[in-house]
Amino acid sequence: MQAIAVEQGRGRPAILEQERPDPAAGEVLVRTLRVGVDGTDHEVIAGNHGEFPEGETHLVLGHEAVGVVEDGGDTRFSAGDVVVPTVRRPPPGAENGYFERGESDMAPAGEYLERGIVGAHGYMAEYFVTDAAFLLEIPSSLADVGFLVEPLSIAVKAVELATSSRSSFTWHPESAAVVGNGSLGLLTLAYLKHVEGYDRLYCVGRRDRPDPTIDIIEALGATYVDSRETPVSDVPDAHEPIDFVFEATGYAKHAFEAIDALAPNGVGALLGVPEPWEFEVDGGRLHREMVLHNKALVGSVNSRMRHFEASTEALSAFPEWFVDRLVTGVYDVDDLAAAFDDDDTTIKTAVQFSEYEERR
Amino acid sequence: MQAIAVEQGRGRPAILEQERPDPAAGEVLVRTLRVGVDGTDHEVIAGNHGEFPEGETHLVLGHEAVGVVEDGGDTRFSAGDVVVPTVRRPPPGAENGYFERGESDMAPAGEYLERGIVGAHGYMAEYFVTDAAFLLEIPSSLADVGFLVEPLSIAVKAVELATSSRSSFTWHPESAAVVGNGSLGLLTLAYLKHVEGYDRLYCVGRRDRPDPTIDIIEALGATYVDSRETPVSDVPDAHEPIDFVFEATGYAKHAFEAIDALAPNGVGALLGVPEPWEFEVDGGRLHREMVLHNKALVGSVNSRMRHFEASTEALSAFPEWFVDRLVTGVYDVDDLAAAFDDDDTTIKTAVQFSEYEERR
Repeated sequence: MQAIAVEQGRGRPAILEQERPDPAAGEVLVRTLRVGVDGTDHEVIAGNHGEFPEGETHLVLGHEAVGVVEDGGDTRFSAGDVVVPTVRRPPPGAENGYFERGESDMAPAGEYLERGIVGAHGYMAEYFVTDAAFLLEIPSSLADVGFLVEPLSIAVKAVELATSSRSSFTWHPESAAVVGNGSLGLLTLAYLKHVEGYDRLYCVGRRDRPDPTIDIIEALGATYVDSRETPVSDVPDAHEPIDFVFEATGYAKHAFEAIDALAPNGVGALLGVPEPWEFEVDGGRLHREMVLHNKALVGSVNSRMRHFEASTEALSAFPEWFVDRLVTGVYDVDDLAAAFDDDDTTIKTAVQFSEYEERR
Repeated sequence: MQAIAVEQGRGRPAILEQERPDPAAGEVLVRTLRVGVDGTDHEVIAGNHGEFPEGETHLVLGHEAVGVVEDGGDTRFSAGDVVVPTVRRPPPGAENGYFERGESDMAPAGEYLERGIVGAHGYMAEYFVTDAAFLLEIPSSLADVGFLVEPLSIAVKAVELATSSRSSFTWHPESAAVVGNGSLGLLTLAYLKHVEGYDRLYCVGRRDRPDPTIDIIEALGATYVDSRETPVSDVPDAHEPIDFVFEATGYAKHAFEAIDALAPNGVGALLGVPEPWEFEVDGGRLHREMVLHNKALVGSVNSRMRHFEASTEALSAFPEWFVDRLVTGVYDVDDLAAAFDDDDTTIKTAVQFSEYEERR
């Protein structure tokens, strides 16, 4: 079967020919439908993030998958089920409380592998096997868009973590700003509108019109904020103080500017993963502002099964036009270069390994 | 009656002669026993914080009071009840949801007055009146130390707010570090040990031995960390990563160093109120660290009735030696200068306005 992998020192993905895997006891064999491409894949390809599996010199890419069960073996899954796998897996050997509790997203570095990213092969292959514990059945109506369940689950987890930080008092947020207009930013914006019910939404980017992400932002009823004209910290003056800021850029200054953007008692969720970068901040003012107005900043990474479930439900609630416009390309394996292209007309792409055919 | 006030432009507290106040409907007349002195009082006296009541040129000081009901009027209080007043009051006029919900600690600047601090006279007088809604009855056994209920309630609220930020996953913190060895820091340390049940406690200061605060830290079974030798960010290397950091210094760099001090999934509560101060941080690394390890920073100010109640209970759970050593002086009104003295032998002082006599 075909798989898409990055080989050590190559810096670009390539097609490999591999054996179709055999499921062991407790495992499920999945025929892959589609696998999404995101910024993490680009970092893995460039060698800036992730690890090869122990003793190997290539990594099968892909962590945003949807597929169809080919062989459920001795598990609760049956052939034909439409499924989405989670990403983190326990490292072999040692006990791991995070996985035992179903909270693998809270495991620190070293206590998890990530399929397609850290030390374990991903899902960009015609078939993959996985422990059934890490597989979620989703409605067959989502077979085409199920590769969005994983990225959206990242937003669901961050919103949950941030909201829980406001749970010891009455908090009725009305305004939210998503900083970043990449695919995660736009998925989050749709989630905040259609599931969390935010009335007033902003999305911060640095693009000129005409731009397809600005079109989506405005079609969602949100206000586009160009950070070249209105820095994040000026959003309260230019628009209004923001109850919930969701940072999805990895631009470190945004994490600090978020404190100024927040309304009293507001919270900022941080999701970007910047490189080290020293810069000056008015640390005294920011510290004081957090204290006197009970503001919070909450870092968030990854997600767990509960968030995959909520994400699946959310995806069903999104209007069809949103997903249609978000997914700018679905490419066959042969069209690899297009799938991994990343220009201003690309929002979200996926690689298609097989087509879904409804059972009769 | 005598009151202790600061007059505009004077920069030091003075004794004023005032009329004894009359309680209106819904109000209680309280005979003051003791009123604690803290850093906020010193800032108010220096003119760096707070506001005079509208149209007045003096402010009666004091927000950490314990007293005895002299006249309960038409309220649920009876003469002889030992009571502690809260600090925030609604500004006259406008509706105020924060106070209606009993969450005045979440009100933003402009939507509250603070007795003894912002626009309302405090409790440093032989008698004071207050709306019964802002008065808590405490056990008469706490009559001597009830002036600690208010400062301890500040810690209780911050711990609650920080803990709630970790409520969307399983969090069993074992180590905590209090940054700051002032009276709030020491009260918090005792609270974390005797109420929250932390096993491993650290307290960060910058004092040479012999020092009475270091003695208390060690008598509580905590480890003293001298930040001149071990910066807050080095605590994990020197000791262990910290699940919960409580910052009570107002030294802004500590807010940022706390991120490094935290264990994965840890939270830092910020309580200090620094002045503006620009400095360099490795913002990229700090941002990344918060995200990849799900860390949070939570600013916290003030407290509400629920925290006064929990604080009262906590105070009863503290060993007697702790309060005896924390309170380094209780002074009569005539001995004003001593009460407001602030040297390295002073930890916590109070002004005594009258003595408590048990009813028979």
